[in-house]
Amino acid sequence: MIDPLKTLSEYARFPSVSTDPAYAEGMAQARNYATGLLEQLGFEVEVVETKLHPILLAERHRNPDWPHVVIYGHYDVQPADPFELWTSPAFEPTVREGRLYGRGTADNKGPTVVHMSALARVLEAHPDLPLNLTYVIEGEEEIGSPSMPEFFDRYAARLAKADCLLVSDTGSPNTEQLVITTGLRGLVDLEVKLRGPASDLHSGIHGGAVYNPLQALAEICASLHNPDGSVNVPGFYDEVLPLYDWERAELKRYPETEESYAKLLDVPGFYPANGLSPLEAVRFGPTLEFNGLGGGYQGEGSKTVIPSEAFAKITCRLVAAQDPHQIQDAVIAAIESRCPQGVHCKIRRGGVASAYLVVPPGRENTPADQGPVLAGAFDAAQAAIANHFGKPPLYLREGGSIPVIADFKARAGLDAVMIGLFTPLDNLHAPDESFDLGLMERAVPAFEDIFKALAGV
Amino acid sequence: MIDPLKTLSEYARFPSVSTDPAYAEGMAQARNYATGLLEQLGFEVEVVETKLHPILLAERHRNPDWPHVVIYGHYDVQPADPFELWTSPAFEPTVREGRLYGRGTADNKGPTVVHMSALARVLEAHPDLPLNLTYVIEGEEEIGSPSMPEFFDRYAARLAKADCLLVSDTGSPNTEQLVITTGLRGLVDLEVKLRGPASDLHSGIHGGAVYNPLQALAEICASLHNPDGSVNVPGFYDEVLPLYDWERAELKRYPETEESYAKLLDVPGFYPANGLSPLEAVRFGPTLEFNGLGGGYQGEGSKTVIPSEAFAKITCRLVAAQDPHQIQDAVIAAIESRCPQGVHCKIRRGGVASAYLVVPPGRENTPADQGPVLAGAFDAAQAAIANHFGKPPLYLREGGSIPVIADFKARAGLDAVMIGLFTPLDNLHAPDESFDLGLMERAVPAFEDIFKALAGV
Repeated sequence: MIDPLKTLSEYARFPSVSTDPAYAEGMAQARNYATGLLEQLGFEVEVVETKLHPILLAERHRNPDWPHVVIYGHYDVQPADPFELWTSPAFEPTVREGRLYGRGTADNKGPTVVHMSALARVLEAHPDLPLNLTYVIEGEEEIGSPSMPEFFDRYAARLAKADCLLVSDTGSPNTEQLVITTGLRGLVDLEVKLRGPASDLHSGIHGGAVYNPLQALAEICASLHNPDGSVNVPGFYDEVLPLYDWERAELKRYPETEESYAKLLDVPGFYPANGLSPLEAVRFGPTLEFNGLGGGYQGEGSKTVIPSEAFAKITCRLVAAQDPHQIQDAVIAAIESRCPQGVHCKIRRGGVASAYLVVPPGRENTPADQGPVLAGAFDAAQAAIANHFGKPPLYLREGGSIPVIADFKARAGLDAVMIGLFTPLDNLHAPDESFDLGLMERAVPAFEDIFKALAGV
Repeated sequence: MIDPLKTLSEYARFPSVSTDPAYAEGMAQARNYATGLLEQLGFEVEVVETKLHPILLAERHRNPDWPHVVIYGHYDVQPADPFELWTSPAFEPTVREGRLYGRGTADNKGPTVVHMSALARVLEAHPDLPLNLTYVIEGEEEIGSPSMPEFFDRYAARLAKADCLLVSDTGSPNTEQLVITTGLRGLVDLEVKLRGPASDLHSGIHGGAVYNPLQALAEICASLHNPDGSVNVPGFYDEVLPLYDWERAELKRYPETEESYAKLLDVPGFYPANGLSPLEAVRFGPTLEFNGLGGGYQGEGSKTVIPSEAFAKITCRLVAAQDPHQIQDAVIAAIESRCPQGVHCKIRRGGVASAYLVVPPGRENTPADQGPVLAGAFDAAQAAIANHFGKPPLYLREGGSIPVIADFKARAGLDAVMIGLFTPLDNLHAPDESFDLGLMERAVPAFEDIFKALAGV
């Protein structure tokens, strides 16, 4: 037996901050703790070394004819600073008003403990549960999963023997209305660096002759959207799949309105492109966003300078079925072709990630070859959520990116059932992160039902 | 007698950095030294208190019927840091290869010593020189002359009795070819501050719904120029006087080509607007320049954020006869009208200054009412420069701004004869500032001739 609250309180005590080498011991402690839980559940655990933080690959493979589910999670957490903004210390998990507070209690240790607690109960009742299971728990999710490509190089063939992926690393609007996430946006990262004159110039002595790199930057950046807000890059929308009617219908049931959303963000209005509503646009539409612009004098007051350099940090969010390499090439080509003659343009190619999309069973567009285990997992999840949370789940894409999910599909052919156990109250990546204990109490029996349904017991 | 080199070496030893309160003693020392020189020349010196650094107002008024010349200069200097880049200490004036090195040796203590040395020689030969003289030597030129408006409030009526202003605070291309500066550009300063959502947003979760303030910034800034490089603000050019034919002809004699200028700035080409050549555009054309843009993530790599805020620091250089208040209003109105609905726009109004233009005697466009003393000063300067430097001066406007010159005109009706004693080798405002001793040796007798001609002796 695994007691969920006690286990999560222990697991979240280890400061497993992957980005900061000072937390190497916390990383090792969390990894060892997760290893212990997996071994307690009867898994054979392989600690796969990487250049940074090892990946736990745990297997319970009994019979090649049984259904086979891969469960993905991560044992690393976001940095906890600023520490002074925490009500109770970030790495001393504390219960207050039905929530367990602490860094990582939600993202992603809470969901991992939910899965394992459910599995422990099922395995206790059914020691010979006819279900093959593989756990992949990595330690670098919060820093972009840099070791996963190499992991897939080595293990994709083994993972490809499984039937589907089970993940809880996405969100739901509240604890009453869970979401099964059907898609994630992809990502394209790049940075434009412009150089005009070799050094900063006095704008009185030289102003009027040279092309100011900041003017070039503004002109290039302004050219990247059309007046209607759509992205003005040739080919940008060519491969975008339209959203399905059922997706639009699901979103209508989402417990948020355009008005409540505007109030939340404190904006006077929304400006979505391509005929999407704002709530649609953040889930189903691709974007090109400026994350940072800079150049010239940044201090108080004024300084009459024509700067030598300017930069723009740009990311695109992609939707199915945009190819991130093609989009990166197209954006770069557009920028280079629009750079005025008086300015040198250099572009740093950042990382890219594909969007991910899965269509649950029984939809108009469900792939004809959808495997029975995946379909069964969706059905089981729907029934379990309806049963334990009172309402059937919503099936919605999410605007964020978890690149590794598309990689599981591309590298090992696995589609994902993503059951969102976070809510907006969890303060992910922020001070006072917490996990809802009421949700946990209902999620454990729900996952029990899911595992039993998958095993057919 | 005033020995120019010895005097400048003493005067430049006082660290009169006006912007830094730590140099209060250096300011007082330089002020006292200049006062001593003026008294030695027979002036009555009034130390006019201001909120910061006193202004020296020195008068030698003997007969209301004599010509009356005001000489303007400043005893404050730019900061000297970074000190480690100086070959010899900034405030230990040192002669090397025909130059006196030290902060302020050129800007503006050298020219002041040239004027005073010349005057000392003339007054020694002609103790009763029939010329009324007023010196205004301020201590805040390097910080924007903030006390001069109040000074004009008190003394404009007295200054208005004079006939013209004599200034040496502008540049010439080299020591062989002096320039009489006939115009200075004005200045309009403002800062655009945009706010979108109340706080920074995750570009995955919220991207596609809100108007990114950086996108709005780029679009607003890009709209401020036309494709041909001209400023796209209604009315911007309405009051611009065309440059005179004689100005174009003078510039043809300027010892710099488009090619040498491009090489100096290390730019692939020039992009002047309104049919001006690059060398014309920096002197005769108004501009709108971005001095700083910023917003969002400024560090290394990428961060997927939609920032809450963005800013643009903008200055315009104006030419005669643009009204700086009207231009500031027009630019602000254009920006406000182009700010998209999803973004709040606030504009900080910075300072403004008028452009200045004077037409020397004998030109097609010389004002019919140009006074004989001003005309005489131009003629005397031309003859003295031709005689002592071997070539007649060029008459050219300069791209920089010295707001106080337009104020002397607006507040006291005084036009200026600006004889440029700086050259590009002087490193103004930079380490290893220096003043050319060969130029000084020729400038002193040239100014002797000018003072004698003005007095008719």
